[in-house]
Amino acid sequence: LTSADHTPAGPAPEDAGLLAPGRAGSPVEAATGDAAFCRAMLDAEAALARAQAALGLVPAEAARAVDDAARAARPDVRSLALRARATGNPVPPLVADLAALAGPAGADAVHRGATSQDIVDTAAMLVAREARRLITADLDRVAAHLAALAAAHRDTPLPGRTLTQHAVPTTFGLKAAGWLTAVAHARDRLAGLPLPAQLGGAAGTLAAPAGPAGDAAAAALRLPAVFAAEAGLAEPLLPWHTLRAPVAELGAALALVCGALGKIAADVLVLSRTEIGEVAESGGGGSSAMPHKSNPVRATLIAAAARQAPAAAAVLLGCVAAEDERPAGAWHAEWAPLRDLLRLTGGAARDAAELTGGLRVFPDRMRANLDLTGGAVVSERVAAALAPALGRAAARDLVTAAARDARERGVALIRALRDAGPPLTDAQWAALLPLTDPAAYTGVAAALTDRALRAAARPGEDR
Amino acid sequence: LTSADHTPAGPAPEDAGLLAPGRAGSPVEAATGDAAFCRAMLDAEAALARAQAALGLVPAEAARAVDDAARAARPDVRSLALRARATGNPVPPLVADLAALAGPAGADAVHRGATSQDIVDTAAMLVAREARRLITADLDRVAAHLAALAAAHRDTPLPGRTLTQHAVPTTFGLKAAGWLTAVAHARDRLAGLPLPAQLGGAAGTLAAPAGPAGDAAAAALRLPAVFAAEAGLAEPLLPWHTLRAPVAELGAALALVCGALGKIAADVLVLSRTEIGEVAESGGGGSSAMPHKSNPVRATLIAAAARQAPAAAAVLLGCVAAEDERPAGAWHAEWAPLRDLLRLTGGAARDAAELTGGLRVFPDRMRANLDLTGGAVVSERVAAALAPALGRAAARDLVTAAARDARERGVALIRALRDAGPPLTDAQWAALLPLTDPAAYTGVAAALTDRALRAAARPGEDR
Amino acid sequence: LTSADHTPAGPAPEDAGLLAPGRAGSPVEAATGDAAFCRAMLDAEAALARAQAALGLVPAEAARAVDDAARAARPDVRSLALRARATGNPVPPLVADLAALAGPAGADAVHRGATSQDIVDTAAMLVAREARRLITADLDRVAAHLAALAAAHRDTPLPGRTLTQHAVPTTFGLKAAGWLTAVAHARDRLAGLPLPAQLGGAAGTLAAPAGPAGDAAAAALRLPAVFAAEAGLAEPLLPWHTLRAPVAELGAALALVCGALGKIAADVLVLSRTEIGEVAESGGGGSSAMPHKSNPVRATLIAAAARQAPAAAAVLLGCVAAEDERPAGAWHAEWAPLRDLLRLTGGAARDAAELTGGLRVFPDRMRANLDLTGGAVVSERVAAALAPALGRAAARDLVTAAARDARERGVALIRALRDAGPPLTDAQWAALLPLTDPAAYTGVAAALTDRALRAAARPGEDR
Amino acid sequence: LTSADHTPAGPAPEDAGLLAPGRAGSPVEAATGDAAFCRAMLDAEAALARAQAALGLVPAEAARAVDDAARAARPDVRSLALRARATGNPVPPLVADLAALAGPAGADAVHRGATSQDIVDTAAMLVAREARRLITADLDRVAAHLAALAAAHRDTPLPGRTLTQHAVPTTFGLKAAGWLTAVAHARDRLAGLPLPAQLGGAAGTLAAPAGPAGDAAAAALRLPAVFAAEAGLAEPLLPWHTLRAPVAELGAALALVCGALGKIAADVLVLSRTEIGEVAESGGGGSSAMPHKSNPVRATLIAAAARQAPAAAAVLLGCVAAEDERPAGAWHAEWAPLRDLLRLTGGAARDAAELTGGLRVFPDRMRANLDLTGGAVVSERVAAALAPALGRAAARDLVTAAARDARERGVALIRALRDAGPPLTDAQWAALLPLTDPAAYTGVAAALTDRALRAAARPGEDR
Repeated sequence: LTSADHTPAGPAPEDAGLLAPGRAGSPVEAATGDAAFCRAMLDAEAALARAQAALGLVPAEAARAVDDAARAARPDVRSLALRARATGNPVPPLVADLAALAGPAGADAVHRGATSQDIVDTAAMLVAREARRLITADLDRVAAHLAALAAAHRDTPLPGRTLTQHAVPTTFGLKAAGWLTAVAHARDRLAGLPLPAQLGGAAGTLAAPAGPAGDAAAAALRLPAVFAAEAGLAEPLLPWHTLRAPVAELGAALALVCGALGKIAADVLVLSRTEIGEVAESGGGGSSAMPHKSNPVRATLIAAAARQAPAAAAVLLGCVAAEDERPAGAWHAEWAPLRDLLRLTGGAARDAAELTGGLRVFPDRMRANLDLTGGAVVSERVAAALAPALGRAAARDLVTAAARDARERGVALIRALRDAGPPLTDAQWAALLPLTDPAAYTGVAAALTDRALRAAARPGEDR
Repeated sequence: LTSADHTPAGPAPEDAGLLAPGRAGSPVEAATGDAAFCRAMLDAEAALARAQAALGLVPAEAARAVDDAARAARPDVRSLALRARATGNPVPPLVADLAALAGPAGADAVHRGATSQDIVDTAAMLVAREARRLITADLDRVAAHLAALAAAHRDTPLPGRTLTQHAVPTTFGLKAAGWLTAVAHARDRLAGLPLPAQLGGAAGTLAAPAGPAGDAAAAALRLPAVFAAEAGLAEPLLPWHTLRAPVAELGAALALVCGALGKIAADVLVLSRTEIGEVAESGGGGSSAMPHKSNPVRATLIAAAARQAPAAAAVLLGCVAAEDERPAGAWHAEWAPLRDLLRLTGGAARDAAELTGGLRVFPDRMRANLDLTGGAVVSERVAAALAPALGRAAARDLVTAAARDARERGVALIRALRDAGPPLTDAQWAALLPLTDPAAYTGVAAALTDRALRAAARPGEDR
Repeated sequence: LTSADHTPAGPAPEDAGLLAPGRAGSPVEAATGDAAFCRAMLDAEAALARAQAALGLVPAEAARAVDDAARAARPDVRSLALRARATGNPVPPLVADLAALAGPAGADAVHRGATSQDIVDTAAMLVAREARRLITADLDRVAAHLAALAAAHRDTPLPGRTLTQHAVPTTFGLKAAGWLTAVAHARDRLAGLPLPAQLGGAAGTLAAPAGPAGDAAAAALRLPAVFAAEAGLAEPLLPWHTLRAPVAELGAALALVCGALGKIAADVLVLSRTEIGEVAESGGGGSSAMPHKSNPVRATLIAAAARQAPAAAAVLLGCVAAEDERPAGAWHAEWAPLRDLLRLTGGAARDAAELTGGLRVFPDRMRANLDLTGGAVVSERVAAALAPALGRAAARDLVTAAARDARERGVALIRALRDAGPPLTDAQWAALLPLTDPAAYTGVAAALTDRALRAAARPGEDR
Repeated sequence: LTSADHTPAGPAPEDAGLLAPGRAGSPVEAATGDAAFCRAMLDAEAALARAQAALGLVPAEAARAVDDAARAARPDVRSLALRARATGNPVPPLVADLAALAGPAGADAVHRGATSQDIVDTAAMLVAREARRLITADLDRVAAHLAALAAAHRDTPLPGRTLTQHAVPTTFGLKAAGWLTAVAHARDRLAGLPLPAQLGGAAGTLAAPAGPAGDAAAAALRLPAVFAAEAGLAEPLLPWHTLRAPVAELGAALALVCGALGKIAADVLVLSRTEIGEVAESGGGGSSAMPHKSNPVRATLIAAAARQAPAAAAVLLGCVAAEDERPAGAWHAEWAPLRDLLRLTGGAARDAAELTGGLRVFPDRMRANLDLTGGAVVSERVAAALAPALGRAAARDLVTAAARDARERGVALIRALRDAGPPLTDAQWAALLPLTDPAAYTGVAAALTDRALRAAARPGEDR
C-alpha cells in the first residue's frame, strides 16, 4: 500500500490469483497464464512454418521470416482477447499481428493451411507439456518426502480409523506408504499420456497443404508428423479436432493427481485436529483473530483443489461427445477447465511438496490415542486369541463386554477382562497380556511398507 | 504488436481473457476481477467500522479513519495474492495494509471482532450484487428482444423438430416466446435471491464484539443487521459460515440462467445450419481459412458457457456439506467456481443480448423447409381429418404409406393420398386439401405466444 | 396388459437397493420405483381423458372407459421397459396396452392429442410430488428434533472449530440451530417449487386437440389448465418440453436439501470421532471384525448421498440447454438423475430423522475438550481483556506466548500468564481469572439460537 | 438363506429399467444387477476361503464347506439390502447367512480375517470384469462396423462442418475412421486397466490373518496375491481401501467410452436431420402421434448416456480424496455411480453396435448438400488457386464476394466468379473449373482413412 501500490495497474490483471492462494505464485500458474498460452500459439505457428519449409510447402526464407517474427512477437494478450470475440478464438487476431510482423517475406507463409483449432490445440498441448513437467517434478519431491516418512515411521503405531472410529492399529509408515503409492501411480498416469500436436486444416483433411490440385498430397500427409517433431509433441494418428481423448484423458489424469494429493490432505486434516494432534504442518497458518491457532493451511488448500478438479474433468469428459468437424461450443468449453485443472494440480503439487517436506509427526500422541479406548482397539486380536479356549462366539462376547467396561471405568482392557472372570489358566493370562498392547498389533504393516517403498523406487512399472 | 505491446507488463496479467472470449471485455468481467474483489473487501471492512461506530463499539473517529483508509487504499492485488498463501486467504495481508494506512487513529478499529470469512463472504456478496445488476440488465435486454421477435413472428410457421426430425409445424413466435419465458423465469430466480452480509467472528458467536465480559452483547446481536445495512446487503438470520445456501443457490440460479440462454443458443445453432438456414446471427464470425463462412459465434460462446456452468454449480452445491464452524477446504473451494459462474453468466448474457438483438430470421427458408417432406409434417392432422371417414387406424395407415410415397416420389402429400385411392367423396377431398398445407397447422401457437408475452410483461409474478 | 404381459419378463429385480443402503426400504424408494412411475403415467393418461371430456374434446363415455382402464391396469414394467427401446420411451407400449384394455369404447380416447413427453413429464412431476411430500415430512421431523436439541443445549459450550483447530468456544445449541436453519431453508425451497403438468402435443402447439381444422382451438388452449387440475399439478404457462426449469430447479433444490443434511452429517462425523466423542448416534452400527466398534452409520450414509447429489443436479442443469421442440438425448438424460436425486434425498431425510431423533450428546466431553488447550481457546478474549492495560499488540503477543507455554507445560492459561509476569494489579488479575474459563466465552450464541428457533417456528417466511 | 429369506421381501422390482431404455435388457444390465453383485460377493467369500486354505490359514475342509455354501447360496437380495442398513453395507448380513449355510464345519472360516470392504470392493471388480468383457465385445463389434463403413465410403465426399456451417469437403470414410479411432482408443484404455482384488482386513494391515501373535505373518503377506488369483483379479500392491485409483480410473475410462460413442451419436443426429438426410438409422423409432416420423432412437439414447457419464465419473474422482483407513461416505458414494457407469456404457455400446451395424448412408444427399452453397464450400481452394494470378488478398476478396453472390443468386461459384470479371486467361479459367467441384477437394482424407484402418487392425498399440 505504498503510493506505488496505489497506481491503478490498468485495464490489466483480471485475475492475479487473489482468490486462488493454492496456485498464486506457483510455477504452473506462470506457465499457464495468458502470456504463456500466447507464446505457445506463436511457437505453434513457428513450428508450422518450419515444418512446411522442411517439406517444401513454403519457401525456406518465408518460414524463417515467420519463425523470426514469432520469436520476436510480444503480443498484447488483452488486445488479442478482445479481438478474439469476433471469431470466437484468439488465432485470427494473432495471425493478423504475426503476418504484419513477418513482413512481405513471411506474411503469406503465416498460418498456411492451418485452421485456428490447429494452433489453439497445439498450444494447449505445449502449455500442458510444460505444466506437466513442473507438476511431475513436484510430485517427485512429494514422493521422496513420503518415502522418507514411510521409512522413518515404518514401525510407528497409530490407531487405524474407519468410519471415524478407532478400528485396529496400523502404522504411520503404512499410511505414508499408501500416500506414496497413490501419488506415484497418479504421477505415472499423467506422465504417460501422449500430448499430440494438432494439424488438420479447415475440416481435418489437410486439403490446403495438399494444394488446390492435390499436387502436394504426399507432403501434406507427412506434415503433421514433421510439425509435431518441430513442436516437440507427439505425432497424432489423425487430426483430432473432434476426437478429444487427449484433452479428456489429460483432465482425468490431473483430477486423479488432485485426488491422490487430496487423500494426503484429508488424512493430515484429521490427524492434525486439536484433539488428535498426531501430525502438524511445519508452518501452520495463523489467524488474525486467534493468537493461538496454527492451521493446516497447505492441507486446506490441497483439499480445496481436490473438490474442484473432478467437476472440471467432467466438463472435459463431456466435451468428447462433440458434433461435426468442429463443434459449436464443446471445443470452446474445454479451454478454461483444462487450464483450471493444470493450475489446481500445479498448486496442489506445490503445496503437497511443502506439506510433506515439513510434516511434523508426533509418535507420542499416536501412542496416547492408541490407548484411548482402553485396549478396545485390539479387541479383534484379543477375541481371536481367546477363541481356542472359549469358543469364537463366547470370546467375542466377552471382549465386547470387557471393552465397554474398560472404556466406562477408564481401565485397561486386560483389567476388565480379568474382572469379567473367564476360566483361563495363569499361563493363558500370561500369554494374553502382551496381546492387549495396541502398539504391537500392526499385522504385516511393516512388510507392506517395504513393498510399497520398493515399488516406488521402480518408476516405469505400474505402481 | 507495436513496440508498446512488446513491453512485458510485469509479473502481470495471469488471465486477461485470452481463453475466454465469451466474457472478455464484458462489464461483469471487470466487476468480478481481483481489483473489484479487493475493493469489495475494503468496502466490507469500511462498512464494519461504520457499523461498529454506529453501535458504540468503536469510537466514531477511529471508524472514520478506517473508512477513509479503505476508500483511499489501492492495494497491489498480486502482493495480496502471494501473501495470502500464509493463511490461506487474502484478508490477513489486506488487514495489515489497511491498519498501516489507517494510522494510529484507526488501526485498532480495523477488522475489529471479525474473522477473515466475514470479509471474504461479504465481499463475494458485494461482487455478486454488482455482477447480478449487470447480468439482469442484459437479461432484460434479451427479454425485450425476444418479446419483439415473438410478436413479429407470431404467425410465422416453421417445422417443429423433435429428436432431430420434423414433427408438426410450430411458429417462430412460439419458439421465441418459449425462449422469453425461460429467460424471464431464470432472471426472476436470480434477482429474487437474498445476498446476505456475513458477520459472526471467529466461530460465529460474535463473541469479540460482545466484549470479553459480554457487556456489549446487545450491540453485538444487532451488529450483523447494521453491518448489512451499511454494506447494502441483506441481513442474515445467523452467521452462515457453514450454512452455505446463499452461495449454493446463487450458483444454481446462475447455472439456470446459463441453461436458459444455452437453450436459445442450441436452437440458433440448429436453425442456422447451412442446410436449414432459418436464422442467422447478424455479425457472424468469419474464418481465417474459409472466406465464405459466417459462423454463429455468439451462439457458440453461449453454448460453451452452458457446458461449463453446471459443473461449477455442482462444486458449490457440494460445498454445502461442510464440517465445523469453518471447513478446511469446502469454503476455499467456492471462491473460483462462484466467480467463474458470474463471469460465464455475464458473458453469456452479453452475447445473448447481441445475438437476440441482431438475429436475422428467414421466413422463406422456414416455409421451404416445411415443404421438404411433401406434407408429411402434417400427417398427424391429415390422419385425424380422415379418421371419421376411414376409421382411426386405417386413416393412420393410409397417411403413413402416403407420406412415405410422397417423400420417395417427391410429390405433395395430397397427390400421394389421391394415388392411394381411398374411398372419399369429392367434398371430402375438397375439405382435405387445405389441411395438407403445413403452414396452416400451428394449433394454438399464436395464442400461447400472446399468453407468454402477457406474462413476461408482468415481472414479479412467477413466470 | 394381457395375461401374457403379466408374466414377469425374467430375472426380476435389477436393483433392489443392495448397493443403496441409504434408501433401501425408504418410503421414497417405493414412491419412485418403476411401478410407481408406471402408475403415474397411467394417472396422467386418465387425467388427460377426463380433462378432454370436461372440455368436450372426447365423449364422456370414452373418457370413462380410459379412466377405468387406467385404474385397473397393472402393467408389467419389465415388459414396458423392454418395449420402450423401440421408440426410446415407455409411453408407446403403455398406450398400446391401455388402448387394448380400454376396449372399443375408449381406445380412440387414449392418449388423444398428446405426445409421449406429455405423459412422461407429467408422471415425473406426479412422482416428484409424492416423493416431496414424504421428504418434507421427514425434514419436518428432522427440524423438530433439531429445535429440541438446540433448545436443550442452548447453553452447552463446546469448542468452535475452524480449519480443524479449536478456535473460540461456541454452543451446541447454536450448532443445532444452524443445522435447523439450513434444513428449514432447504425444505422451504423444495416445498415452494411449482410442479407443473405437461401438455403440448407433438411440438408444443396443442394442434391435435385444436382439431384438424382448428375448430376446438379455444378448448385446446384451456386444456393444459384443466389437465393440470385433474392431475393435481400446477398449471404450466407454456408447454415446457424444452423449457426445463421445473426439472432443473427441482434437482438443485434436492441437492440443496442433501447438502443441508450433509452439513449435519459432516459435523456428527467429526464430533463422534473416537478422540472427540462429543456426540454419538444412538444405534451405531457394529462391525463384523471389530467387536468394540460403534459406527456413525446414519451420518455416513447421509454423507454418501451428499457426495452424489450435486453431480446429478449438474446433469439436470446441463439438460436445460436443449435444442428443438424435443431434444435427442437431453430429455432422456434427465430421467435417471431426477429419480436418483429424489431417492438420495428421501434416503438422507429418513436417515437424518433417525440420526437427529436419537443423537446422544455428551456435554462432559465437550467441556473436557474445551480444556484441552489449556485455555488457549479463549486467547482472543484474554488478549482483548488485557489490551486496555498492555496495549493491543503487547497483549496479543503475551497471550500467544502464554498459550504456547500453557500447552507445552500442560498448565492452565492463567498460570502461564502469571508466570510470564506482566505488570498487572491484583484487581486486574482477579478480573482476568473468570475470563480464562472457556465455557463462559460464547458471545451471543444463546441469543442467536433463540432467534433461529423463532424463525423456524414461522414456516412460510424465508428462513 | 433359509427358505424364509427366499420370500420376496415385498413390492418387488424397484427398478426394472423403465426409465433406462438405453440399458434395459442389455447383457451388462443383468451382469451388474443386484443378483449379480450378490453372486460376486459370494464368489469373493469363496475365493477368500480357498486362498486361506491354500496358505494353511484355515482347514481345507472348512474352506470347502464355505466354498460349497457360497456356490449353493441364493440370497434374497431385498432382504440383504434392508438388513444392510444396520451397518451401512450388505456384507454383515451376507456373512451371517453364509455362516449359517456353511454349517459347523465352515462357519468359523467364513469371512475370516476380512473386512466388509474387502468383499464389496472385490465384488465390484468382479462385476466390472464381466461388464467390461461384455462392453469390449460390443465395442469390437462397433469397431468392425465402423471399419467397414470407413472402407466402403473411403471416397464418399460430404460437407465438412464446423461451427454448424459448411467448411470444406471431407469424406464419410474419414468421418467413420475418426469414430473408429476414438472407439478403439477408448476400448483399449478400458481393457488395459488392472482390476485388482481387495484384501486388507480391518485397517489394511492384514493383522487378523497374521494371527494374534503374528505367527502367520508370512502367509498373511502372500494372502492378497493368492486371493486375487483365486478370484481371477489382478494382485494389488497394497490394500487399496483408501487408495481409490482402480475405481476412479475405471470411471474415467467408462466415461471416455461413452464420450467416444457419444461423438458418433452427435454426428448421426446431425446427419440424420430432416434437412440434411445423409444418414439414417436402419430401424428408426416411430411416434405415437406422427405417422411419418423415423427417429434416430439409438443415437438419442447414446447421447443421453454420454450426458450422464461424466457426472458419475466426477463423483468417483471426487471420492479419491478420502480420509482415514475407511472413509465415512466417500466409499459408500462410489457404489451407485460405478454401477451406473457400467450400465450407461454397456447400454451405449449395445446401441452403438446396433446403430453402426445398420447405418444407412446416402451419398446422393451428401453430394446434394455439397452443392448447396454454390461451390462456396471450396472457396478456400479456389482462393488458393487464384492467389498466384491475383495475389492472395485479392483472390480471397474475390472469392468471398463471389461466394456471396452465388448463394444469393443461386448460381454456381464458377459462374459468379466469371461474372465478377477478374483478369484471367482462358487457360486459367479452364484450370479453375474442375477445382470448383466440391466433391474433388478432400485433401488427404482417403490416405488418413487408410492410416486409421491400419492402426485399428493393430490392437495393443496405442490407437
